Amino acid sequence: MQKNGNSTPVRVVVDAMGGDYGPHEPVKGAIEALDAGDIEIILVGDQGPIEAELARYDIAGKPITVVPSVGKIGDDEHPIHGLRHKPEASILVGTKLLKAGKGDVLVSMGSTGASMASSVMVLGLMEGLERPCIGGPFLGLAPRTVMVDMGSNVDCRPALLLSFAALGAGFAKKFLGIKSPRIGLLSVGAEEAKGNRQVQESYHLFQQSHLNFVGNVEGMDFFTDKADVVVCDGFVGNILMKFTEGLGSVLGEYLKQHLSRAISEQGAGTIISELWTEMNLPRKMGGPLFGVNGTVILGHGSSKSDGIAGAINTGVRCVDLDLVGGMRQELAEMYQSGALKVI
Amino acid sequence: MQKNGNSTPVRVVVDAMGGDYGPHEPVKGAIEALDAGDIEIILVGDQGPIEAELARYDIAGKPITVVPSVGKIGDDEHPIHGLRHKPEASILVGTKLLKAGKGDVLVSMGSTGASMASSVMVLGLMEGLERPCIGGPFLGLAPRTVMVDMGSNVDCRPALLLSFAALGAGFAKKFLGIKSPRIGLLSVGAEEAKGNRQVQESYHLFQQSHLNFVGNVEGMDFFTDKADVVVCDGFVGNILMKFTEGLGSVLGEYLKQHLSRAISEQGAGTIISELWTEMNLPRKMGGPLFGVNGTVILGHGSSKSDGIAGAINTGVRCVDLDLVGGMRQELAEMYQSGALKVI
Repeated sequence: MQKNGNSTPVRVVVDAMGGDYGPHEPVKGAIEALDAGDIEIILVGDQGPIEAELARYDIAGKPITVVPSVGKIGDDEHPIHGLRHKPEASILVGTKLLKAGKGDVLVSMGSTGASMASSVMVLGLMEGLERPCIGGPFLGLAPRTVMVDMGSNVDCRPALLLSFAALGAGFAKKFLGIKSPRIGLLSVGAEEAKGNRQVQESYHLFQQSHLNFVGNVEGMDFFTDKADVVVCDGFVGNILMKFTEGLGSVLGEYLKQHLSRAISEQGAGTIISELWTEMNLPRKMGGPLFGVNGTVILGHGSSKSDGIAGAINTGVRCVDLDLVGGMRQELAEMYQSGALKVI
Repeated sequence: MQKNGNSTPVRVVVDAMGGDYGPHEPVKGAIEALDAGDIEIILVGDQGPIEAELARYDIAGKPITVVPSVGKIGDDEHPIHGLRHKPEASILVGTKLLKAGKGDVLVSMGSTGASMASSVMVLGLMEGLERPCIGGPFLGLAPRTVMVDMGSNVDCRPALLLSFAALGAGFAKKFLGIKSPRIGLLSVGAEEAKGNRQVQESYHLFQQSHLNFVGNVEGMDFFTDKADVVVCDGFVGNILMKFTEGLGSVLGEYLKQHLSRAISEQGAGTIISELWTEMNLPRKMGGPLFGVNGTVILGHGSSKSDGIAGAINTGVRCVDLDLVGGMRQELAEMYQSGALKVI
């Protein structure tokens, strides 16, 4: 399931039906990524529509193949129910290709729930792990601050948060090249006693682990370089992500009004659009699913082709860096340290 | 404790020792507010230092008096312990003036914990209420979205959240003039089933209340006009507040770099400083303490004189609008509706 060494191109399985704009944008994004890098593309989806999309491009001689599937699991469907009733859905077929070693990385724009459930079911969780999660940098203005969990697990016991911290540490080491990532628990004050019950209990568990735990951090510390990995449950993580997205939009409006006093509309437009990207980092690059036995990149459902190409690039990088191996090792050390017990 | 009708000036008690810059900035801010409006100022604090500060200004004939106190309760002190061991601390003396009817509103820059504890102890909580909280608009870019709780209560049972929702509704009616404020529960999805255990349990309780409950809202909905009052516990509220502050600072840096391509340093400086204010609304205007029997305005500890004058103005407005009466009525309706029981 891992990469084949640096000599052969990374094989990217793309769930072409995923997201709000499948298959049009996923196919377009896959071809953009193909033109830019030494990769192979395997498109999974409803055969007719995908071939109609492909007919728009000159793909003669390019390493792109289609693996047919039937239907997709929508955002409005219960993931498990969807997987059970649509055994040939694009996400399931794609995940099985990865499991069978026919691809090195799977890229999907969602539904996120279905992608996660399919990954857990087909690829399996890393040993000892109870749940997967989503993590990574989420803000271009804080590109070296990793947040886990970004929204997958709304109620987390301390042991689950600690396992996410280990995965985040593995990500920071591999993806950001940080030797001993500083782990912070997101709370309402720096002191040990500050925080809700969940954080207070987690604090003691984190202290006992092998991680480089720097204590509690606060909301502003995404920007203060106090921690490389900020750990919170998916409830807080999801709210912060969406808050930032919403703020990015109104900031654009605000700046449009205020910059028009001083500079041209075009100049303002460039600055605003660059800022919007900074506020919506996961839309630009997607993010790896943490904790499953395979490289799976999840993107924002509203991604257009550039976001899909960005997620593919992220995926290729994760394969090249052996992110999955790094996370697995970090988890194993956690269990060896005795701070967590294998469930 | 309420105002004396529109004919007489509002009497503002200022904790002159509070915040990071007491008594210098509180005295300066009080005089700025005095010069701008028809109010009376009662400064509470260590007599020598306050009189030294006052000596800088020409206050002859101005309605400003000093009530001496001894010491202050710092941010690093446990509030209850501080109140017990410093019975003449400025915040306690100030709160007692309010209780005795010698002032209409108390303004303090902190410590927040000591101001809250003093208010609860001296003024008392509104009938049936278990805890006070802090609320209000917290973002200039979303000036009509009220958030409760901004950070006072990190673990909240559903009944506590519902009482905060009632206080928020009272605030939105009085302060923002919204007839039937829409109440949203902050969660990770709009559907009823989305959210952590706390939100799911709260959802049902909120539905049974007399409030105009519009269901779950998400992080972006601070900006989408889906709800007038967004309810969350103080853990999430505090993280959002501080995240926004931190983001405001890095945004300033970001814009400084990017605007320098297009406009003068001075022009960029103006835009950046206006934006910073938008991202730090409570520093500009303070916010009322919700749920105590008196008008108490809390400001940010780092406030300078303009922030203190802003908090005083907010306080005068709260008195004029009878905010306390409005909140009390909203709570009473909640108990009459049977959704909450008086504890």
